[in-house]
Amino acid sequence: MHRSIEPTIGKADQQQQRTIGFFGLGSMGLPMAFHLASSGCVVRGFDINEIARSRFTEAGGESCVTAVEAASGATVIVLMVVNIKQAYEVLFDAAALSSSVEDCIVILMSTCPPGDVEALAKSVHATGRRFLDAPVSGGVAGALKASLSIMVAGEKQAFDQCHEFFNVLGSKVYYLGEQPGNASVAKAVNQLLCGVHLAAAAEALSLAERAGLDTETVLEIVSGSAAASWMLTDRGKRMLDTDPEVTSAVDIFVKDLGIVLSAGSSAKAALPLASIAHQFFLATSGQGAGAADDSQVIRAYRRMSSGNREE
Amino acid sequence: MHRSIEPTIGKADQQQQRTIGFFGLGSMGLPMAFHLASSGCVVRGFDINEIARSRFTEAGGESCVTAVEAASGATVIVLMVVNIKQAYEVLFDAAALSSSVEDCIVILMSTCPPGDVEALAKSVHATGRRFLDAPVSGGVAGALKASLSIMVAGEKQAFDQCHEFFNVLGSKVYYLGEQPGNASVAKAVNQLLCGVHLAAAAEALSLAERAGLDTETVLEIVSGSAAASWMLTDRGKRMLDTDPEVTSAVDIFVKDLGIVLSAGSSAKAALPLASIAHQFFLATSGQGAGAADDSQVIRAYRRMSSGNREE
Repeated sequence: MHRSIEPTIGKADQQQQRTIGFFGLGSMGLPMAFHLASSGCVVRGFDINEIARSRFTEAGGESCVTAVEAASGATVIVLMVVNIKQAYEVLFDAAALSSSVEDCIVILMSTCPPGDVEALAKSVHATGRRFLDAPVSGGVAGALKASLSIMVAGEKQAFDQCHEFFNVLGSKVYYLGEQPGNASVAKAVNQLLCGVHLAAAAEALSLAERAGLDTETVLEIVSGSAAASWMLTDRGKRMLDTDPEVTSAVDIFVKDLGIVLSAGSSAKAALPLASIAHQFFLATSGQGAGAADDSQVIRAYRRMSSGNREE
Repeated sequence: MHRSIEPTIGKADQQQQRTIGFFGLGSMGLPMAFHLASSGCVVRGFDINEIARSRFTEAGGESCVTAVEAASGATVIVLMVVNIKQAYEVLFDAAALSSSVEDCIVILMSTCPPGDVEALAKSVHATGRRFLDAPVSGGVAGALKASLSIMVAGEKQAFDQCHEFFNVLGSKVYYLGEQPGNASVAKAVNQLLCGVHLAAAAEALSLAERAGLDTETVLEIVSGSAAASWMLTDRGKRMLDTDPEVTSAVDIFVKDLGIVLSAGSSAKAALPLASIAHQFFLATSGQGAGAADDSQVIRAYRRMSSGNREE
């Protein structure tokens, strides 16, 4: 199969050539689908949740009630679903893939275990379609502002054809080679650092608490020194609040650090710090605080050394 | 004993009133002693190493060949020695303390275990002298530029009398209360984060290596996202070099994370991430790389999962 590389002729012209089936209209998927529609693509959105579909319709998008309808004639299928299982369900069980055009490009943008992504790519390739492994970082804020960082791995020609597509959604696009799964490893590396930095902040501040220091002063000290991290700056203050606003939940890191450990397992790379950090998010979730702000991982540290047996 | 608080009447005037015995003229102590001398204090420097003493003399400082000579008539004794053992040796075995004036303020600026600092403070107090626990962060660069962050704990009146002294050496001064040891806990909290962030960077980049990714690209991704840390930015590039310039040695973190764990032990606070990070610095030192740049902690990760039994 030969496809010439589309010439770069301005965003609107390029995007008009695409018909996109967009799956997963959650807090990140919704603004992403909206940005693509605004750029001139035909975007048909689908979500198993009716409320999510209504939101997309209200924003001026075209929602579909079946996966087949959303994927019908699609040249690109975007998956911003919860996990790899949902990706299989959409593509195969709900027949989205067989409804798309023969050389459709499937772009998986969810955070998934690299080994699973590699397997999914094989299944997609077996149908003659193409596949890009393209997880993002930047969260809901990045999705809303179209300033995501996008990591991409897969067939170079397919990547080249999607340059404008990625530029609509993100401000930085990194290509990590032909092997699907490589971009998911890069995302795992990213989440390893985020998760360990967050748990390290909890470990550090809980030491300060336990030693009876003024934690506000300690936070100020470490935020302005070689001890600083993006996570410490962003979450440090909320970590010292009892019940802060939720910007990202504890259970997201239970999931993401699970994916990090799976990535390590596939690469046969031992990841002791990530493994310990994972246990603390898990313990916090076990306290019933899985939906709390992820800064509350400090609760597992506090409880661990608590003298109160009744707690 | 009553001492009125000295009025703030300009740096030079204040500092002229002080006679400082400065102990430990190493890579940090030397520039610190020099800044104090330049500010108008009488500074008598001592180091067990003759070369260090010569350097101070060459820079225009007054070096002494005995601790007694350096401390004679001192209103302030500064300790920038290697460890708590040297602090005891200088003050008691070498009789620096008994040579100082009766209400001399001893300022311990080395990084030491908080429990040991508390004990030393008691011994100093027993002689009628005063004590400030005052570790610094900012490294050699901060010492040279007089831009250290200084954490101080101890008697408030003594702290107030040393405002100008600390301002000569640092750009930020934090007071952590009357209890000697508290400032050393704050320094331990700082080093916990530095050490864990450095080991986390090694864990993350070694995963990327093992999975066969382009590590330069991965480093660029994580340096510009929520995964960023001061350590990653500063050490990341050197971590990917085989034999980089040494800015701070592996063995410094073997020592500092040891102090962190001691701080946790005193506070009965479990520190699993710091403990794991410590083991990786120790393993790197065990490979004979204790004097290598601390970014080389990645070698322990590489070796750990290496398939080469001959190595």
